[in-house]
Amino acid sequence: MPEHGISNDSGLDELRIEADDRDRKKWIQIYMDARRLMVERDLASSPHELFSEKAFGPIARGPGSGIGWLMRDPGRELYSHVKALFPICRSITGAGLRQTLDYIGARVPLVRHEVPSGTKVLDWTVPAEWTVRGGVIETLAGRILVDFRRNNLHLVQYSLPVDRIVPAAELDRHLHSLPDRPDLIPYRTGYYSDSWGFCLAHRDRLALTEPAYRVRIDTELAPGSLSYGECLLPGEEEGEMLIAVHCCHPSLANDNVSGIAVAIELARRLAARPRRRLGYRFLFNPGTIGAIAWLHFNRDAPQRIRHGLVLSCLGDAGPPTYKQSRQGTAAIDRYAAYVLHAAGHAGRVLPFIPYGYDERQYCSPGFNLPVGCLMRSPNGTFPEYHTSADDLSFVRPEHLARSLDLLTQIIDLAEQDRVLLNTEPYGEPQLGPRGLFRAIGGASLGAEGERGFDHMALLWVLNLSDGQHSLLDIAERSGQEFATVAAAAAALGAAGLLRPA
Amino acid sequence: MPEHGISNDSGLDELRIEADDRDRKKWIQIYMDARRLMVERDLASSPHELFSEKAFGPIARGPGSGIGWLMRDPGRELYSHVKALFPICRSITGAGLRQTLDYIGARVPLVRHEVPSGTKVLDWTVPAEWTVRGGVIETLAGRILVDFRRNNLHLVQYSLPVDRIVPAAELDRHLHSLPDRPDLIPYRTGYYSDSWGFCLAHRDRLALTEPAYRVRIDTELAPGSLSYGECLLPGEEEGEMLIAVHCCHPSLANDNVSGIAVAIELARRLAARPRRRLGYRFLFNPGTIGAIAWLHFNRDAPQRIRHGLVLSCLGDAGPPTYKQSRQGTAAIDRYAAYVLHAAGHAGRVLPFIPYGYDERQYCSPGFNLPVGCLMRSPNGTFPEYHTSADDLSFVRPEHLARSLDLLTQIIDLAEQDRVLLNTEPYGEPQLGPRGLFRAIGGASLGAEGERGFDHMALLWVLNLSDGQHSLLDIAERSGQEFATVAAAAAALGAAGLLRPA
Amino acid sequence: MPEHGISNDSGLDELRIEADDRDRKKWIQIYMDARRLMVERDLASSPHELFSEKAFGPIARGPGSGIGWLMRDPGRELYSHVKALFPICRSITGAGLRQTLDYIGARVPLVRHEVPSGTKVLDWTVPAEWTVRGGVIETLAGRILVDFRRNNLHLVQYSLPVDRIVPAAELDRHLHSLPDRPDLIPYRTGYYSDSWGFCLAHRDRLALTEPAYRVRIDTELAPGSLSYGECLLPGEEEGEMLIAVHCCHPSLANDNVSGIAVAIELARRLAARPRRRLGYRFLFNPGTIGAIAWLHFNRDAPQRIRHGLVLSCLGDAGPPTYKQSRQGTAAIDRYAAYVLHAAGHAGRVLPFIPYGYDERQYCSPGFNLPVGCLMRSPNGTFPEYHTSADDLSFVRPEHLARSLDLLTQIIDLAEQDRVLLNTEPYGEPQLGPRGLFRAIGGASLGAEGERGFDHMALLWVLNLSDGQHSLLDIAERSGQEFATVAAAAAALGAAGLLRPA
Repeated sequence: MPEHGISNDSGLDELRIEADDRDRKKWIQIYMDARRLMVERDLASSPHELFSEKAFGPIARGPGSGIGWLMRDPGRELYSHVKALFPICRSITGAGLRQTLDYIGARVPLVRHEVPSGTKVLDWTVPAEWTVRGGVIETLAGRILVDFRRNNLHLVQYSLPVDRIVPAAELDRHLHSLPDRPDLIPYRTGYYSDSWGFCLAHRDRLALTEPAYRVRIDTELAPGSLSYGECLLPGEEEGEMLIAVHCCHPSLANDNVSGIAVAIELARRLAARPRRRLGYRFLFNPGTIGAIAWLHFNRDAPQRIRHGLVLSCLGDAGPPTYKQSRQGTAAIDRYAAYVLHAAGHAGRVLPFIPYGYDERQYCSPGFNLPVGCLMRSPNGTFPEYHTSADDLSFVRPEHLARSLDLLTQIIDLAEQDRVLLNTEPYGEPQLGPRGLFRAIGGASLGAEGERGFDHMALLWVLNLSDGQHSLLDIAERSGQEFATVAAAAAALGAAGLLRPA
Repeated sequence: MPEHGISNDSGLDELRIEADDRDRKKWIQIYMDARRLMVERDLASSPHELFSEKAFGPIARGPGSGIGWLMRDPGRELYSHVKALFPICRSITGAGLRQTLDYIGARVPLVRHEVPSGTKVLDWTVPAEWTVRGGVIETLAGRILVDFRRNNLHLVQYSLPVDRIVPAAELDRHLHSLPDRPDLIPYRTGYYSDSWGFCLAHRDRLALTEPAYRVRIDTELAPGSLSYGECLLPGEEEGEMLIAVHCCHPSLANDNVSGIAVAIELARRLAARPRRRLGYRFLFNPGTIGAIAWLHFNRDAPQRIRHGLVLSCLGDAGPPTYKQSRQGTAAIDRYAAYVLHAAGHAGRVLPFIPYGYDERQYCSPGFNLPVGCLMRSPNGTFPEYHTSADDLSFVRPEHLARSLDLLTQIIDLAEQDRVLLNTEPYGEPQLGPRGLFRAIGGASLGAEGERGFDHMALLWVLNLSDGQHSLLDIAERSGQEFATVAAAAAALGAAGLLRPA
Repeated sequence: MPEHGISNDSGLDELRIEADDRDRKKWIQIYMDARRLMVERDLASSPHELFSEKAFGPIARGPGSGIGWLMRDPGRELYSHVKALFPICRSITGAGLRQTLDYIGARVPLVRHEVPSGTKVLDWTVPAEWTVRGGVIETLAGRILVDFRRNNLHLVQYSLPVDRIVPAAELDRHLHSLPDRPDLIPYRTGYYSDSWGFCLAHRDRLALTEPAYRVRIDTELAPGSLSYGECLLPGEEEGEMLIAVHCCHPSLANDNVSGIAVAIELARRLAARPRRRLGYRFLFNPGTIGAIAWLHFNRDAPQRIRHGLVLSCLGDAGPPTYKQSRQGTAAIDRYAAYVLHAAGHAGRVLPFIPYGYDERQYCSPGFNLPVGCLMRSPNGTFPEYHTSADDLSFVRPEHLARSLDLLTQIIDLAEQDRVLLNTEPYGEPQLGPRGLFRAIGGASLGAEGERGFDHMALLWVLNLSDGQHSLLDIAERSGQEFATVAAAAAALGAAGLLRPA
């Protein structure tokens, strides 16, 4: 009996649309490809009236849309940012942080903020600004053994100024090394400890056998300000996606120069899109205190932030990883899980824990924002983490490019997923007169390959567009790919059979 | 300690009920059997006052009740319908459809409907009526190669009249065959295509090597009407179960003469029952457009239809299959799953998809009726589907009989499942004085076999009859068989310990 | 980046709290241990102002708190109760039951109740009081073959007085034995059967080959009363935990002298605690009719009973078993499951069934109290059950002690679990100035062992204390042990970062 639904219409009317349209799915695909190219060429008008987006909104785009636009090799461009930013000695305040924001601001329209030291932000106080010019441990004879200029990890961040002879035993209490990785310099901070310290390779530490050394630390801790930058790309609808990266680590390539690089390129691509459904707010900030400050000045964030992602460690060889928001079932959690699953990394979706990056702040119970974290290897899970081995060789262009690609897919899902309403919900609408059907019925849908598959997507979208199911819900219940469902919705919307819920 | 509950009563009082009643379960079983026989003999009164149904409603009946009543061999009767109906050339309108409804109406009280061509029904329009008298392809020398009279599948349904010489290349565009099954004639329709066509064995198609053929199609497409029939068997309570079958396929035995045959016999059995809790509405209609028309004239269906089943493909050798309603958790979904599970076919419960039979229409989002579909082999899953191989040899009496049996079990569940209220919900009621208990306590229930098992069912029904659980809920939570739970409820209801919720 | 959260504070301030406090977890542990000892010594004041319970309530105690207090060997004390109570011939009324309540009342402050025979309680009527002085079967020559004085199981409970010659065939209908366990005397009751009977070893029954015997039963069934005892230990908050044990079985050691013994010792320990958050109501009652009577006089139980446990069979060698309440997801169900899981007995959590002990009455649908049942081997699952083999050798001191220990852990969970509110829910609060943090950041938490683990617990408690999660919810979501979470909550509460929800 099923052929009734199939042959329910004058299929030859399909010819009204396109002379040789024997395979609607291909037709739609062609349209999509054309549309994507148009978007990438910054052309806004639609090539075919049937697919006017006026009544329906932005049309579905396939994975990776936008990739390949600004450059032929996105990995190379991403890596060039990493190389440029890696040498800078960033901290949670100070010149290195501002220099980094300058670099970003030259590529992305950035609003800069400076919050004076001593300002109360939520439960915290903005600390004094730290200026660092150098730091050495030398023998009493003047031979320099450890030098900040050789590697800015040598100095514990926020070390106080020192210039005196220090007995070996006292010095040892100010040293940090890794006995299990004796060649690596660890990264340590002491923002609120009113102390000083050096990090060095354990092998070098063991060579410190003299009774005393001269320590010279040329730093300054004085009233100043905390710096961060914001870039807002407005969208057609209310609400924003927050993309946040911390910019306070010194010479650590993966954590988090890689995140800064990916955010820069993502912002450029989104800025160039002729239309965005959502607004995108990029936040480049020192970790913890910067997020705390931003939240302090954006107490209404829960009303505005519809989705959010913290980016970090996006350049290493590990598989992509998504850490869920505290909510766990937010839309962004589903989008990221869907993309990682499709990319073969379903097992890399991790539950929220209140430790990690600034999602800790965005997901604090008072805000509880739908903000997850996209990484490759998570913090603390690789031996190079927070050491001098997290350098330019640890990050590769192809991993950066792949991270940007997955991130773009997640964003495209957020752009395309929506709840639609079937305008003819009583029985199935007659598809033939609307140019959405074949003429001869009776054969199994499955036997007709691509065409049947596409027709099933039409039926699923019609059946579940009751105001309770988004397109992703429909994709998940039907087992159809999201792109197929979105394409079917585009066709139905163009035919007047769907409207926004 | 458990024996307190067990020996809580003067068990010898059981003798007040029946002199030799040592095993209440057996007693109930005897009662049940007697009752079933009574029902089958069309006797309405109860043999024992204790089990009066006045306060309680229809009593539980075991699986297969009703089977064996009208005839000794239901399979033979069912198959006789299949044989009688198979040769008729049905379509979605016309004489063959009316002849089929005549056959049904001679066996079941049928209300006939005729909807004029051109009538708007939901989003659709009733098409012109199709009359077919013949159709041949012959050589220019007059030798008939393909003839509708030999097999009514040869003509694409709704083919327009033709009588002319057709060049071979043009003819080929009007032919349908199955290269992978070269001996079978496919079944094709073109209700809304304003065209014509023939279906033939691929082997015969390859033999068409002449430059031109004469095509003669003696059909007529003219204003007329769409026919369908309804049979309503009223019940004691509000609400109906819809049993719907499509009646528009020509000579295809399984899809769906088998469904028509089973529906006829089910209607006869239900009509003969002395009492029905639910009403039963049988709908014999052309697929898609007939369901659309019925829904158009029954927009209040969601208020009336409590359960529904579409029947199709019930005569082949495949295991029984239930396709869930769109809701997925409707009562009918649970009843069908329970029966198929008990019959060893748990894996044959399939989720809803918006493709298949008229459940597509009943489950469209505007109606969203609790209507599933009962089949043996589902559409499109067997090579005989929609071909000349779906003939009288493909359908067997024993499969038809088994389908009717399972369907009856599903209906008995719907009849018997209800939410009851424990009238003594504070603590356990004292069962002994009510004749529901044994005298001597202390032994484990499990050690007493059948009797203990039955006693557990009493306790479960009392414990969960809080207005939140139906008898099927209780069966599922307790792990007891539904029949045991229903029998316990019958006994408790008779003793005044349960009342309708 | 994670080190920002870690080193967010002047960790050296920790020294303000305790000079050598390098490991807060150890410090808390020390505090806990000290506190527990204090509690056990009946000292109420806190050793350290920081951990004042004034603002926060009772502090977390580790598993087994209280154990080891009253005696060095709790198993020996528990077993001494079993030995003392075992010989008494208890029934649901009468002298043996009162003697048992006397024994309990000498150790626990007990309020005694007597409910006159004939009183209507819920759906039941309090039966006549049964007095038993003896019962024998003897040969006509006067040789005693079965004697109640040798084993009080020999007489079916509530046997009527008899003194006459009984033909063997008639006698046989009054005998109970176990053919599959021919050496054991079964336990049988006939409270409401107006009959009489003997229980004996099957081997002895087979030896009764004479044509007639003299039966002498010296009992009395006369108006009297039903006895039960209550002990209420008030708590600081509204609401009670019900601990109920049946006290009506004669010489059966595991079922349920073991339950009485454990309840006595638990009540003594709880009575000696300087503070109890919850009230504890101990109920010592005859099974079924006693619970029915208590519920009859406590119809408001659902308003008062927050948690409840029925205790039975706590002295055998089987693993501990928890049978869920009818609700299945009540707090007591989670507490018991958590403790059994931690003790390696996750599989011994059984779903509710409306058969077993007095949880049947507490969980009847009208009351539906959150009352589960704690056992070792459940009723009916061991061959000694309800036979003469359930004797003093079947129960062991170490099993009794372990049962008391697990029960105490469940109660400690109920005492400590609560919903708290983070007082600084916007972003993370700055932990350093509050003495809750380390100074130098940058290393992975995981790499620091115990200290990091404890810090994670602080973050989890802060993140989830939103009024929606109890401490047990936090433990389960975080994967941290409850004790660790409770200790973190104690520290945060002391620092003013948590308050009662």
